[in-house]
Amino acid sequence: MKQSQLFTKTRKEAPKDETAKNAQLLIRAGYIYKEMAGVYSYLPLGLRVMKNIEDIIREEMNIIGGIEMKTSILQNKEIWEKSDRWNDNVVNNWFKTKLKNGGEVGLSFTNEEAYSNILKRYINSYKDLPIYPYDFKEIFRNETRSKSGIMRGREFYWKALYSFSKDEAEHNIFYEKTKIAYQNIFEKVGIGDLTYLTFASGGTFSKFSHEFQTFTEAGEDTIYVDEKNKIAINKEIYNDEVVKSLGLKKDELIEKKAVEVGNIFTLGTKFSEPFDLKYKNNKGEENYVFMGSYGIGLGRLMGTIVEVFADSKGIIWPETVAPFKIHLLEIGNDEKVRKEAEIIYKKLLDSKIEVLYDDRENIRAGEKFADADLLGMPYQIIVSEKNITTGKLELKNRKTGEVKMIDENETDNLFI
Amino acid sequence: MKQSQLFTKTRKEAPKDETAKNAQLLIRAGYIYKEMAGVYSYLPLGLRVMKNIEDIIREEMNIIGGIEMKTSILQNKEIWEKSDRWNDNVVNNWFKTKLKNGGEVGLSFTNEEAYSNILKRYINSYKDLPIYPYDFKEIFRNETRSKSGIMRGREFYWKALYSFSKDEAEHNIFYEKTKIAYQNIFEKVGIGDLTYLTFASGGTFSKFSHEFQTFTEAGEDTIYVDEKNKIAINKEIYNDEVVKSLGLKKDELIEKKAVEVGNIFTLGTKFSEPFDLKYKNNKGEENYVFMGSYGIGLGRLMGTIVEVFADSKGIIWPETVAPFKIHLLEIGNDEKVRKEAEIIYKKLLDSKIEVLYDDRENIRAGEKFADADLLGMPYQIIVSEKNITTGKLELKNRKTGEVKMIDENETDNLFI
Repeated sequence: MKQSQLFTKTRKEAPKDETAKNAQLLIRAGYIYKEMAGVYSYLPLGLRVMKNIEDIIREEMNIIGGIEMKTSILQNKEIWEKSDRWNDNVVNNWFKTKLKNGGEVGLSFTNEEAYSNILKRYINSYKDLPIYPYDFKEIFRNETRSKSGIMRGREFYWKALYSFSKDEAEHNIFYEKTKIAYQNIFEKVGIGDLTYLTFASGGTFSKFSHEFQTFTEAGEDTIYVDEKNKIAINKEIYNDEVVKSLGLKKDELIEKKAVEVGNIFTLGTKFSEPFDLKYKNNKGEENYVFMGSYGIGLGRLMGTIVEVFADSKGIIWPETVAPFKIHLLEIGNDEKVRKEAEIIYKKLLDSKIEVLYDDRENIRAGEKFADADLLGMPYQIIVSEKNITTGKLELKNRKTGEVKMIDENETDNLFI
Repeated sequence: MKQSQLFTKTRKEAPKDETAKNAQLLIRAGYIYKEMAGVYSYLPLGLRVMKNIEDIIREEMNIIGGIEMKTSILQNKEIWEKSDRWNDNVVNNWFKTKLKNGGEVGLSFTNEEAYSNILKRYINSYKDLPIYPYDFKEIFRNETRSKSGIMRGREFYWKALYSFSKDEAEHNIFYEKTKIAYQNIFEKVGIGDLTYLTFASGGTFSKFSHEFQTFTEAGEDTIYVDEKNKIAINKEIYNDEVVKSLGLKKDELIEKKAVEVGNIFTLGTKFSEPFDLKYKNNKGEENYVFMGSYGIGLGRLMGTIVEVFADSKGIIWPETVAPFKIHLLEIGNDEKVRKEAEIIYKKLLDSKIEVLYDDRENIRAGEKFADADLLGMPYQIIVSEKNITTGKLELKNRKTGEVKMIDENETDNLFI
C-alpha cells in the first residue's frame, strides 16, 4: 500500500487522558482512534493487525476441531435468568438496554449462556458429542475504570470457544489440546517466550483453571514463576499448599507482573444443569453435557504485543502480526529515487510481500525515519540517492536496529 | 467438511412466531438460530454464506479505492449531538445504554457521525482527499416490528463506505464508480438479473439517491420498472414529473414489489458542516469536504437470495455464496459405498473444491435427499451401491433438478 493513500497520519501526542503506553503509541501511530475511555475504533493499520491475529487464532482453533459460528450481540434476558447471571448482584458489569416495544436486552458480556441455549437444540445423543463451536465477536463490559488502553476495554473483540463433551475424561483430552493450541498461538504472535501457563482458581468442577500470563509491567496480575518448568501460579491462589501440590519450591519462584492473554476453564455441568443440556448415552441413559470455555481477547493480545516490544522510538511488530512486513522509504525528492522505489515496490508486491511504501512527497528524511520507527514494521528498506548510485539499498531491522546494505536484486529473495 | 461433524441438524418446523420465508428456511436448515424477533445468531453454515458475501463486497470496495477499518459499536453521545441525531425526535430507533460511572452511550445505528468525527483528525489539505474508508460491522435498530426474518433485523451486519471528496465534481466520479461496483456485487452473488438501479428521494444536495432493488414478493418497497433500460423509480417519489425528468414513459413502467439490497447517497456537506470538516485547497482557502454514503446489509442480501431462489424443497444457493459448492451424499450402509465416497471426498478436497460430505450413518436415503435439497448446495453428487457397480456417479443440479451420470474420474474436472 502507498502511504499517500493511507489517510492516517502520525501524531506527536496522544490524548491527555490516555495513560496506557499501548494506546498512546497506537493512537500516535494511527492504528486506533479513541472514542471514549475503553472504547476504540480500529483504523486501517490497526484492523490489519487484528486480522492477522484473528487468522492465527482461527487456524489453531480449526486444527483442534473448532467450528466457527457467530452469536448475536443482543442477548435475551430470559436465557440469562436461567443461570442467574442476568442478576446485577451476580454480574455487575452488564450493559443493558430496552426494546422499544417493551422488555430489556443485554449486550453480550460473555457467551456461555448463548451457546448452552443454542446447543440444547442440537445435542440429543452421545453421537452428537463432542463438539467445539467458537466465535469471534465484540464483547461489552461496563467497566468503571478503563485505564489500560486496548488491554481492558468496555468494548473488545474476542475469540471464545466452548467445548461440549460426554464426560470429564473426554473433556480432559480436549482441554490438554487447547493448552498446546494456545501455546502455539502465543508463540506465533511472538510472545511465546514471555508467556507462562499459570495456575489460577478453578470453579466447582476443577481445582484449577489455567491462564496464559505474559510478563509486562503493564499487566494487572501478579504471578509466581518457575522459569525452569515454564509454569506459574497466580497470586490469587498462591499459598504453600498450592506450591506443594504442583511439585514446586517456593524459593525457586520469582514474582512477576503479568497480563492474562488467554484462559481456559473447566465448567463441568455448571451451565448444562440450568439449561438442562443432556444427552443419551449408548445405554439410553441421560447425562449432563460436560463443558469447558476457552477465551482470548484480541485487543488485549495486540496491546500486550505493543507493551512488551515497544522501545523509545515506537512500536515493534513481530513479523506474523505486522500490518506490513516491510516499510519501503523513499528518501529525497529525486526522480531517480522515486523510479527506483517504484520498481522495488512493484517487485515486492509481485513476490506477495506486504509492503507499505512511504511515497509521500516533501517530507523530510528525518520525519520519514521517525514515522517508520513509530509505526514499527519489522523491516525498513531505504531508497536514497546515495544508495542507488552504488546499486545498493539499506535494509534495517526495526527490532535490532541492525542495518545492512543489500543488492537491489536481493529484495525478492529476502523474505522467502 | 463431514456432516457428522457439523452439529446443526435440519428441523421439520421453524418457530411458530417466524413468518418470513427466508428465516423459516434458514432456521429449518440450520443456518441461523433465532434469539428473539429481529435478532439471529449465525450457525456454522450461515456464517460461511455471510463470509462469502463479505469477501465479494470487500473485493469490489477495494477495487474502487476503499480502505477498510472498523469503528466501535458503542457511540459517544456528544458526537451525535453535533448532527442532532442523538435526539429521539430525530432518530426514533436508537438503542441507548448507560455507562456505570455516568453518562449515556448509543449502539451504532449508522456510521456518518463516527466517520466524520474520526476523519476530522486526518483531513487538513486537498492532498488528503479523496478518501474512501469503509467497514463491516453490526448495526442496531430498535424496530418495533421485525417480521422479515434476516431481511430487517434489530441487529444486523452491514458494509458502510463513506466518501470524502474535495467537491461535487470529484464526488460524482466516485459515485458513478460505486454504481458499477454495486452492480458487480449483485451480479456476483447471483441476483444481478433481478436487481434494478432505482431512483429514490435525495437529500439537500441531490435530487435523487439510488437504491438497488431486487424483485421479490417479500420486499417492503414498491417500484416502477423500466425493464428495457434496467432502471426503476421508488413509489415514494413516483410522479409524472420524475418519470419525465428521467426520460421514461409511464405506460412502459411495471409495478413490482422489491427489497432494497443496497443504497448510495450524496450527503454533500450535511455532516461536514456540523463537524466542521474542512480542507485547505491549493490556494489555501478552506472548504467543506463533500461526502457520500454507500451501504449494503449483508443479512438482508443473504435473506433476499433465499427468498428469490428457494423452491418448495428448500434453499438454492448460487455457487458464489453457497457454504459448500458440492453436497456429497453417501447412500446406503454399504462398506464399498463408504470407501468410494471417501475417495471422492478426498479428491474434491485435493482439488480445493468446497464439499459437504453427508457421511451420517443409519439415515434413510430419502432423508438425506430431502436434507440436501433443504440445505441447497448448488450440486449434489450421489454415491450409491447401484451407481458404483457401473463405475458412475449421479450429479444433480439443485436449481434445475437435472441429473446426469458422470464418470468417477470426472469429478476433478467438473468445476474448473
